[in-house]
Amino acid sequence: VKTDVAAPEPGAADHQLEPLLSPRSIAIVGASERDGSIGHAILSNVRSAGFAGAIYPIHPSAATVLGLRAWPRVSAVASSIDLAVIAVPARHVESVIDDCIEAKVRGVMIISAGFAEASDAGRAMEKRLCDKVRSAGIRLIGPNCMGLINTNPSVRLNATFTPIWPPAGNIGVLSQSGALGLVMLDHARALNLGISTFISVGNKADVSGNDLLQYWRDDPDTAVIALYLESFGNPRKFARIAPQVSRCKPIVAVKSGRSAAGTRAASSHSAALANLDVAVDALFEQAGVIRTNTLEELFDVTALLSSQPQPRGPRVGVVTNAGGPGILLADACEVRGLTLPELSDATVERLRGFLPEHAGLANPIDLVGSDSPEWFERAIAIVGADDRVDAIVAIFIPPLMTTDPQEVAAGIARGAAALPAHKPVVSVFLSTRGTPDMLSAGPRGRIPSFTYPENAAMALAAAYRHACWRARPVGVMHTLPADRLEAVRRVIDSRITQADPDMWLEADDAFDLLEAVGVACARPRVASAADAVAVAESIGFPLVAKAVAPGLVHRSDVGGVIMDLVDADAVRNAIDTLDRRMRQAGRTLTGVLLQPQISDGIEALVGVTSDPVFGPLLVCGMGGVQVELLRDVAFRLPPVSDADARDMLDEVRSARLLDGYRGVGPGDRDALIETIMRVSALVEAAPEIREMDLNPVKVRAPGRGAVAVDVRIRIGPPPGDADAPSDAVLTDSLRRRRPAGPV
Amino acid sequence: VKTDVAAPEPGAADHQLEPLLSPRSIAIVGASERDGSIGHAILSNVRSAGFAGAIYPIHPSAATVLGLRAWPRVSAVASSIDLAVIAVPARHVESVIDDCIEAKVRGVMIISAGFAEASDAGRAMEKRLCDKVRSAGIRLIGPNCMGLINTNPSVRLNATFTPIWPPAGNIGVLSQSGALGLVMLDHARALNLGISTFISVGNKADVSGNDLLQYWRDDPDTAVIALYLESFGNPRKFARIAPQVSRCKPIVAVKSGRSAAGTRAASSHSAALANLDVAVDALFEQAGVIRTNTLEELFDVTALLSSQPQPRGPRVGVVTNAGGPGILLADACEVRGLTLPELSDATVERLRGFLPEHAGLANPIDLVGSDSPEWFERAIAIVGADDRVDAIVAIFIPPLMTTDPQEVAAGIARGAAALPAHKPVVSVFLSTRGTPDMLSAGPRGRIPSFTYPENAAMALAAAYRHACWRARPVGVMHTLPADRLEAVRRVIDSRITQADPDMWLEADDAFDLLEAVGVACARPRVASAADAVAVAESIGFPLVAKAVAPGLVHRSDVGGVIMDLVDADAVRNAIDTLDRRMRQAGRTLTGVLLQPQISDGIEALVGVTSDPVFGPLLVCGMGGVQVELLRDVAFRLPPVSDADARDMLDEVRSARLLDGYRGVGPGDRDALIETIMRVSALVEAAPEIREMDLNPVKVRAPGRGAVAVDVRIRIGPPPGDADAPSDAVLTDSLRRRRPAGPV
Repeated sequence: VKTDVAAPEPGAADHQLEPLLSPRSIAIVGASERDGSIGHAILSNVRSAGFAGAIYPIHPSAATVLGLRAWPRVSAVASSIDLAVIAVPARHVESVIDDCIEAKVRGVMIISAGFAEASDAGRAMEKRLCDKVRSAGIRLIGPNCMGLINTNPSVRLNATFTPIWPPAGNIGVLSQSGALGLVMLDHARALNLGISTFISVGNKADVSGNDLLQYWRDDPDTAVIALYLESFGNPRKFARIAPQVSRCKPIVAVKSGRSAAGTRAASSHSAALANLDVAVDALFEQAGVIRTNTLEELFDVTALLSSQPQPRGPRVGVVTNAGGPGILLADACEVRGLTLPELSDATVERLRGFLPEHAGLANPIDLVGSDSPEWFERAIAIVGADDRVDAIVAIFIPPLMTTDPQEVAAGIARGAAALPAHKPVVSVFLSTRGTPDMLSAGPRGRIPSFTYPENAAMALAAAYRHACWRARPVGVMHTLPADRLEAVRRVIDSRITQADPDMWLEADDAFDLLEAVGVACARPRVASAADAVAVAESIGFPLVAKAVAPGLVHRSDVGGVIMDLVDADAVRNAIDTLDRRMRQAGRTLTGVLLQPQISDGIEALVGVTSDPVFGPLLVCGMGGVQVELLRDVAFRLPPVSDADARDMLDEVRSARLLDGYRGVGPGDRDALIETIMRVSALVEAAPEIREMDLNPVKVRAPGRGAVAVDVRIRIGPPPGDADAPSDAVLTDSLRRRRPAGPV
Repeated sequence: VKTDVAAPEPGAADHQLEPLLSPRSIAIVGASERDGSIGHAILSNVRSAGFAGAIYPIHPSAATVLGLRAWPRVSAVASSIDLAVIAVPARHVESVIDDCIEAKVRGVMIISAGFAEASDAGRAMEKRLCDKVRSAGIRLIGPNCMGLINTNPSVRLNATFTPIWPPAGNIGVLSQSGALGLVMLDHARALNLGISTFISVGNKADVSGNDLLQYWRDDPDTAVIALYLESFGNPRKFARIAPQVSRCKPIVAVKSGRSAAGTRAASSHSAALANLDVAVDALFEQAGVIRTNTLEELFDVTALLSSQPQPRGPRVGVVTNAGGPGILLADACEVRGLTLPELSDATVERLRGFLPEHAGLANPIDLVGSDSPEWFERAIAIVGADDRVDAIVAIFIPPLMTTDPQEVAAGIARGAAALPAHKPVVSVFLSTRGTPDMLSAGPRGRIPSFTYPENAAMALAAAYRHACWRARPVGVMHTLPADRLEAVRRVIDSRITQADPDMWLEADDAFDLLEAVGVACARPRVASAADAVAVAESIGFPLVAKAVAPGLVHRSDVGGVIMDLVDADAVRNAIDTLDRRMRQAGRTLTGVLLQPQISDGIEALVGVTSDPVFGPLLVCGMGGVQVELLRDVAFRLPPVSDADARDMLDEVRSARLLDGYRGVGPGDRDALIETIMRVSALVEAAPEIREMDLNPVKVRAPGRGAVAVDVRIRIGPPPGDADAPSDAVLTDSLRRRRPAGPV
């Protein structure tokens, strides 16, 4: 199979997981003759899959289990053990773990349930076990999982309690649900999707999705990663690891639990705009993870990426023997951002050379009911050779009196073999009798076949979108110099120690933070009548002047606001006028607030909201209540690079206002991007920021910058590590243990 | 099978189509011994399906065909013939038709291709044939079709060239593509979807989708209608017929050809917002047609509606034996507007009574890996009895060592039988081995089974949405009295006769039209200095005054606009001021434009755009460039009822502004609805209106109305009948021929 999947980045393989996923010896604790027991099923499956290493059944009393010599304890086995699989009741697991540590096994997998998922006591026990194995330098999969599979011929391990043995292939599969793991294996077998490694991670007490992503990144058997996730242990670590992995191996994921989002108090605009699912979307978007809406889409996208290169462009060439499905495909392509281009004159000429007069020569090429393998072969080869086409879809509805769909499939395979290697080719066999084997028997290898035209379009569009993500520059982050960082910490630290654990900052503090990170803002300053002109000149014109007078509440009711001050004279006049008006209102003018007046600019919103699991999230959108109603905003996890910020604005549909729209000139997009990056740098420096609104940010003409006119910031204690306790520690530990050079 | 599908409305069955779809005798022209010929295939299929009526093979010379006595011509057959199926080369079809007319057959179906789809000559020939049969009072299916199927045991007709005989059932199927018709039959058989009638309509020269909708409405064998459409012959007729049919029998449709939308000149806001696909969406929305995105969804929704009642509410109760798929279902439900409510205490108590401690008793009910048929049965019955639940989903992942999925299926079926009849029940069997038969063997009859949880959620959501549509009041239309109609026609007729076939109306004409249909508008009126006060008082205050002076171009540059005139004195002062300013500018004030000043109100847009096939389309949205960028608008085909207009505003997300939002008070929603209805009445009266923008319409506080501040109207020749030539005529003809009383 030829794909354009980039070679893994050079680097050390993860030696810690290797003994677990590619063991040379395995102990099965709980192995049993009793049909129906988990231990029996696992031992049977390990044997029937033809495990290449040594098998040590552990049984308290039996001399043999299923004809294999059994040992009473793991530590009783003389040889070294890579993986101990534990399938005994939860209450016995701890002593088994102790024994495993004594035996110096290199990894354990706890199948048993009854831990964190079951009760508080179970959670405590799980924590204890995890601490124990970690102290001993042993990695742990589970508990509460259904096991793992490695199809590499030199391993052939099925340490699960399902006898399903999927085809060997290049897909690494992780399931956080044991039951859906079964479903995935079942479908992989039915769809002939080849799997390298399958891991049911269970409660993820130790080995997490992040660990497995790093393992697969360096695993030569794996080219595509498929995830079924229900939660993130450490989303910020995922945010660091997944993009590196995605750059060389596509990650396709179903993340369930959207409805667990719940409702959080919406005390600011930004928070009202967010929910847990936007955080997941933002994370996946940044990390280049292909999120599919359904399990079916997961299989479809994985089928494409595991056998075909990613399309270099959005242009699809279609060869079909019926008009209807060609139209359905064209519709589904356009909806998802792909196109069906016109073919070159030369291509049309070559097609005309052998196709009958009534064949359709526009794209889709319509073979009008034909079941000629030769027509399919030639049409695919010709259309695929056209420079105007980036990907090929062959659609076949078996006619009633067709000789043999196998022959058509073979014709498609021959046509596919003639294509440039970098162009993906897929097929749609519209028949409930399934896909003929011959489709994948040609030199091109496996050609994915979809049940319906729409599925093919969805998969190609996802692959193309991912290719675009890869082609995107990595981007640069904004890093705060030490003095700026100090300025930020000074404000935060002086406030966070106060009694109120969760508070909105005073305007002065909020503007201090913005200025510390270099966000331009229309900060109001207080001046006395005497120094008003000097202050005004230091701020710059035009200005708004607002009366400061003891007891004054409704300032504008008594003419206490004067706009459009364009020079020193205007300021002097305004002071006089305000003084007079205050006296008329029975007040005394004690000073004046001077604020830069930003009359121009397109209104935007830049903000921060916090997710209990994900921590701070950046949000941006354009101004206006309607946009807020319409949720036309984009979210990202900090740190946000310039490329990320640019993507955010591309995602916000109304940000096209920045290009100029219906008589209003363009806005300084780069300045808004800069503002987003600086706000990102601010929350990185001050994780205590729970919520923040810069609203509006006035985005002025190109070159004139973007100015925050108003700001609100809420701070609170920095998010604890309760949700992501040990992973971060583990990373460091991993780093230390990893050998210096490549292996 | 029990469903809550309403009984068909009383009315005459369509006797014209009955001889074609339920013939008692059939002639097959082109019947042949030659294996591989269409005529051979059709005769074979008619016989092997066990056609209940008489079969007359027509062959120029043979005495028998396939052992049946053959006739040389249709007119040679002594008995009367209900349906003549014609499968001879296109060039011979006309003489066959002549012969059929002579033989007084009641209907013909032309399988042969080579007509309008092939060439201009073919199109002319098709037109000629169609005129001939219509003159003779004969109905025609095709040409260029793959035939029809009727599974009723008293008919058993397979007059197609596919041997696929689908299960008998209550689904009427129309395919505009022969090839996709094949696919639909193939899948119906594989999914065990029961079909009443299947028709491949081909070129729709005579019998159209609209005719079949009317047939199925009155057909006791049909409860659900599934359509694959590529085009509309007469969308406005569809708009009249489909809602009547939808009220008693759901219509599920895939309409392809979105990408054929093309690009039309966008000379106004409304036109820029439209494309062909929004017209189709609007049509289906108004007509209660369930539009699915994919073929797969068409099957899924049809499977549900053909066997289950429509849910009365959005609340779904879930019984599953695994957590993961339960979460996927919950997610998919919430995304589509369904909910998973908490169950009542009594329900939880009853479940606790027999389920183990570790079972999940929140909704979804999680049987944690069980394969107990009794648990499924009892849990389904208990959850289904809860008043908080409107629909039930049972999810089953076969455990590895399960005794027999058939037994679990039987348990689910027993539980389903205990449910209230009005609550739909569906299942998800997450296994590639398919659905056990026992699932549909209980007294509840067929229980649909979906491949993935997401499909079940999609189908239930579509059914619930349709139920909401049905529950919606039919609504009332605005009808123009004769004098108003005359006033409209006077303006249009005086302009449309002018040389320019396509023109923007002068402001005065446009406002005349609005006033004729009673749309409140801030119409400017010209006054002289002398009568300004009188005119102002007749308009009402506040007002804006604009100077009229020969040669004056940039009125506001010379102070020629004065706002906020609140009484007669202000008007007098304004005239003096304008007079002075004009003289200062070297101009002469000859008059003044007085326009009501609408300072309050929420801005909305009401407009009209035209589609070449669909004719005029109404559009509404809220004001603002961002909304326009975001396409937050709703479209409908006129005539628009109050219920339709209300739906439009529900569809426009930013119309929530009308409820009051962030400090701005609410708007007069009813007045905006009234405006939409009156604009609808206007385009009904003046089909020459091709484009129209009321922008902005100021929607004032409740009770204060909505006022169009600006209006643009483009007129052109009324849309010809080129796209919808004969259907309208045919309706009248049908009406005349139909017997007076119910049959």
